[in-house]
Amino acid sequence: MKILITGAAGFLGQRLALRLLERGELMDANGNRQPITELVLLDVAHSSHSGDSRVRVETGDIADRCLLERVITVETAAIFHLAAIVSGQAEADFDLGMRINLDASRLLLDVCRERDHKPRVLFTSSVAVYGGTLPPVVRDDTALHPQSSYGTQKAMAELLLCDYTRRGFVDGRVLRLPTITVRPGRPNAAASSFVSGIVREPLSGQRSVCPVDARTPLWLLSPERAIESLIAGCELDRELLGTWPVVNLPGLSVSVAEMVEELRRIAGNDVADRIDWQIDSRIEQIVGSWPGSWETSRGERLGLAPDQDFAAIIGAFINSRNSSDPVSGGY
Amino acid sequence: MKILITGAAGFLGQRLALRLLERGELMDANGNRQPITELVLLDVAHSSHSGDSRVRVETGDIADRCLLERVITVETAAIFHLAAIVSGQAEADFDLGMRINLDASRLLLDVCRERDHKPRVLFTSSVAVYGGTLPPVVRDDTALHPQSSYGTQKAMAELLLCDYTRRGFVDGRVLRLPTITVRPGRPNAAASSFVSGIVREPLSGQRSVCPVDARTPLWLLSPERAIESLIAGCELDRELLGTWPVVNLPGLSVSVAEMVEELRRIAGNDVADRIDWQIDSRIEQIVGSWPGSWETSRGERLGLAPDQDFAAIIGAFINSRNSSDPVSGGY
Repeated sequence: MKILITGAAGFLGQRLALRLLERGELMDANGNRQPITELVLLDVAHSSHSGDSRVRVETGDIADRCLLERVITVETAAIFHLAAIVSGQAEADFDLGMRINLDASRLLLDVCRERDHKPRVLFTSSVAVYGGTLPPVVRDDTALHPQSSYGTQKAMAELLLCDYTRRGFVDGRVLRLPTITVRPGRPNAAASSFVSGIVREPLSGQRSVCPVDARTPLWLLSPERAIESLIAGCELDRELLGTWPVVNLPGLSVSVAEMVEELRRIAGNDVADRIDWQIDSRIEQIVGSWPGSWETSRGERLGLAPDQDFAAIIGAFINSRNSSDPVSGGY
Repeated sequence: MKILITGAAGFLGQRLALRLLERGELMDANGNRQPITELVLLDVAHSSHSGDSRVRVETGDIADRCLLERVITVETAAIFHLAAIVSGQAEADFDLGMRINLDASRLLLDVCRERDHKPRVLFTSSVAVYGGTLPPVVRDDTALHPQSSYGTQKAMAELLLCDYTRRGFVDGRVLRLPTITVRPGRPNAAASSFVSGIVREPLSGQRSVCPVDARTPLWLLSPERAIESLIAGCELDRELLGTWPVVNLPGLSVSVAEMVEELRRIAGNDVADRIDWQIDSRIEQIVGSWPGSWETSRGERLGLAPDQDFAAIIGAFINSRNSSDPVSGGY
């Protein structure tokens, strides 16, 4: 089985590639486990890899049709389309966000359509598709009123993927990801970058700025669970997804204050006191427009699970810190 | 004041142009009535006009950037963007629908953005953005799960217009139109074409096919009220629209059976018996995915009104039949 990962040099992309290689197989559309014979890693940045003979690295612009035509062939059974411009950057550079988050997604779907073999396309969307006046708990049938260009572009790409799926051009699935935390590495241009920063930096003896009110509710998922969910989402039986193949991934609803209190409990006052509270209205406006919780019964029915609690998320991060990890990411 | 209408040779476009010329003025963004000095009528088909000196006819492809750059200038204060590929045709020709319903809309918004004067852009959307499992009455915060490419393209263009508005590139407004009926003229490629047909043709002594179950609920608005709503929507105070400038237009919820009974009551058995019931699953699938009713309190608060009842809609059509009207349209 041939698999493509876009955004493969990113935080989730790298981990997904490692996990797939470790697993060695993926379920095909008929529910049969197939060995992974080729894993194509596409990114604008060079994807590091282990020298595994199954891996093929492709470096280039995902909005380039020729490149997509080279990496997507009739043998490509599954595509994990993770490539994206993160929220803060898409807000700062509107045209770049449109080009990668919308146009490249459409191009990818069009190349699949040309190939005419209906590959599975797993597309990652986000809490950021929601916005405006939201109910306390967002439901699967809550309208999308995104208040950022990133959220708008993701919502448009979702619609496109659903129509390409309805028409039988691809076998698409959309997973809306909570804010993934704790990410290792450095801060990035995502508006949610601080969510990992206020845990990661204090644990490393560094100060970190929290740019939003402590009461801000966040909807969180650990990197480990996110990777498991991506694979499970790709393997889901088409029939179970019905006419709207978009799934809000289960997560944990935790306020920033609760995050810090848990960090204090686990790592002590010295660590938790390394957070500086400086409101950044640009970030607060974007992050504050995202839901702090959503209804997850559909995701759970499909077998997708959240983390146990935020203590488990911090614990997993502390355990993984010994392994060197130069990559950060976010949305 | 300079105004542009796209899709100006269409059913609504022609009527809107006549109504604007008759009115002679439109409120500007500051709430002051301004004389209409130029009305640009853009369509791929030649727009007929009365020789009015305020009218400028432009014929061409709306997906052509050069054409849009010619018709949108810094003097363009308001744009009624009606041009669209109708539902049945967008389902039959996916690429054409994407090109006109999505790409041309984006191009139009981009040319406005370049001009940097924030014109008002009134965009017409549709019941077709809804679909899938719907509550009995669709609300403003009901999610869009369109089950047609037309609905998908309209939903994507809505999102785009909202983001361009949020960013201050344009002053956009979206009106979601009920099914406009009774349209004069001939049947067209819209999946909803029959809704007018089953009234219009029998009244002209011709037989007409109803391709859906008689119990199918429809959400209806007369052409006259649609035109008034377009103008009112364009004149709405920006502040009243809040952060999500999309309005579900008030309409009437009427089943096909109720339509026919009303026709029978007004025009007699001979007329109502000219309907042939032949289910067309392709049409039933599209039209059956649309809401038969939606919550209209927001539209009503904004001063937008539905027709009095379906009898009034039939009556208005019968009264207008004496005027020759060669145009049909639909979505």
